[in-house]
Amino acid sequence: MKARITVMPKRTVLDPQGKAVKHALESLGFREVRDVRIGKFLEVDLDTGDMETARRLVDNACQQLLSNPVIEEYRFEITP
Amino acid sequence: MKARITVMPKRTVLDPQGKAVKHALESLGFREVRDVRIGKFLEVDLDTGDMETARRLVDNACQQLLSNPVIEEYRFEITP
Repeated sequence: MKARITVMPKRTVLDPQGKAVKHALESLGFREVRDVRIGKFLEVDLDTGDMETARRLVDNACQQLLSNPVIEEYRFEITP
Repeated sequence: MKARITVMPKRTVLDPQGKAVKHALESLGFREVRDVRIGKFLEVDLDTGDMETARRLVDNACQQLLSNPVIEEYRFEITP
């Protein structure tokens, strides 16, 4: 199974990397850019055939290692 | 309009960050993890109402700043 995980800074948290990229885009002439937020995207191959096992595993991995729940939120989808 | 951009290391390129996370997950007991690849996810708010303008803008931004075309590939979707 394959998991696709997105980890983003929470809306209430400053995103300095996003701000820096926004300013860089503006200085390159991209004036239509209003806001940029940057997070991580992970593709994880899993050695299990069971959807529920995969879901629980990914959720645990996100909470223990892949995200910082204080400042980030995550979402994921799992496909066979 | 809102653009959601995913930037990933190309399949042919080593992904040391992904390898490190895979090993970290294994040492935490996640033995079902076969492979991890890590990239970036960007959410960009755009000040334009035209889909074609938005698409061209995001494509240019990806090529000029948001990705390194030598080692990364990108994809994006745009929603009103």
